Amino acid sequence: MSSKGMLIVLSGPSGVGKGTVRKAMLETSTVKFDYSVSMTTRNMRPGEQDGVDYYFRTNEQFENEIKNGGMLEYAKYVDHYYGTPLKYVQQKLDAGIDVLLEIEVNGAMQVREKMPNGVFIFLTPPDLPSLRSRITHRGTDDQKTIDKRMEQAKKEIAMMSNYDYAVVNDKIPNAVKNIEGIIRSEHLSVPRVIDKYKKIIGED
Amino acid sequence: MSSKGMLIVLSGPSGVGKGTVRKAMLETSTVKFDYSVSMTTRNMRPGEQDGVDYYFRTNEQFENEIKNGGMLEYAKYVDHYYGTPLKYVQQKLDAGIDVLLEIEVNGAMQVREKMPNGVFIFLTPPDLPSLRSRITHRGTDDQKTIDKRMEQAKKEIAMMSNYDYAVVNDKIPNAVKNIEGIIRSEHLSVPRVIDKYKKIIGED
Repeated sequence: MSSKGMLIVLSGPSGVGKGTVRKAMLETSTVKFDYSVSMTTRNMRPGEQDGVDYYFRTNEQFENEIKNGGMLEYAKYVDHYYGTPLKYVQQKLDAGIDVLLEIEVNGAMQVREKMPNGVFIFLTPPDLPSLRSRITHRGTDDQKTIDKRMEQAKKEIAMMSNYDYAVVNDKIPNAVKNIEGIIRSEHLSVPRVIDKYKKIIGED
Repeated sequence: MSSKGMLIVLSGPSGVGKGTVRKAMLETSTVKFDYSVSMTTRNMRPGEQDGVDYYFRTNEQFENEIKNGGMLEYAKYVDHYYGTPLKYVQQKLDAGIDVLLEIEVNGAMQVREKMPNGVFIFLTPPDLPSLRSRITHRGTDDQKTIDKRMEQAKKEIAMMSNYDYAVVNDKIPNAVKNIEGIIRSEHLSVPRVIDKYKKIIGED
């Protein structure tokens, strides 16, 4: 194993269920990782907690963080900022701990540029109709917002080619199992372990 | 999923236990694949069967196959030929079936050139002393052969950088589980599934 932690980026179209899968990962996953809580300026939804689901901040606070270079990535999406504070992520990786980010696709591409060694996982609906149905049934958005999200989703699926893995969110436990498998498997990838093995040859 | 099967190449230093792991994969693995039986000119060992462990052939027969372009890869190792007949592998892959090869490192590099989309897994001992001990305890080789194998193994571990994954053969079930995980995970890799998802966008 590399002495540094591995960055795992879970992303995908809005409405695909990233948050649900991420929560299931935290509750049931057998692989060890820390979750990096995102920062956002959108309103808190019922059941959400500050510092658990997101760090909820004002526009002004968020833009100050950007100015100060404190964001690993950020994006404005449906009129709100979403982003990842850099400091926490870097500390954990340096300590050898894997870090999971659950972020929007624009942000993921920013992370890819800054941390190309990360593992980029694209969570995807089995098909677009099911995405439409899932957004509609959430029942918190008007038709215009839904249409906007659908257009966005098409663009985002086209962006899949920028990711390492595509995981279908058909059933949550399947998605979790597949993501766990990817994490375990990536820990066996030669670029991540080669230094350890070079030592073995030297030690004989 | 891609409509074509995935080629899985299991390789590593002589004596590391490739054959044992491959047999355990065939007996206990929960992933589906066909095993490509290798061809060799070495003598049959007790318990081995022609067509199961290897196709056992004469030097003349083997060299004819090479001449006729019938080998996906081959290598001469400790005075004997080892190789993979191409025809079987290609038929299975075309039929959408994953194929597992268990081959020496020289051969694996030939396959990498011809089939770069394969998944290349390097089976490795936890350290070289344990490799030495394992070869010695097999008790079928003299000291000179053992020393020759050790030098070979050092070179082969240095070749690890040409592989995608390194799996430690500390305990067989662990190695099998890790290889299964790699196979599952690779089936989720974007280059292997992107065409399926491009259809999804088109179909909406």
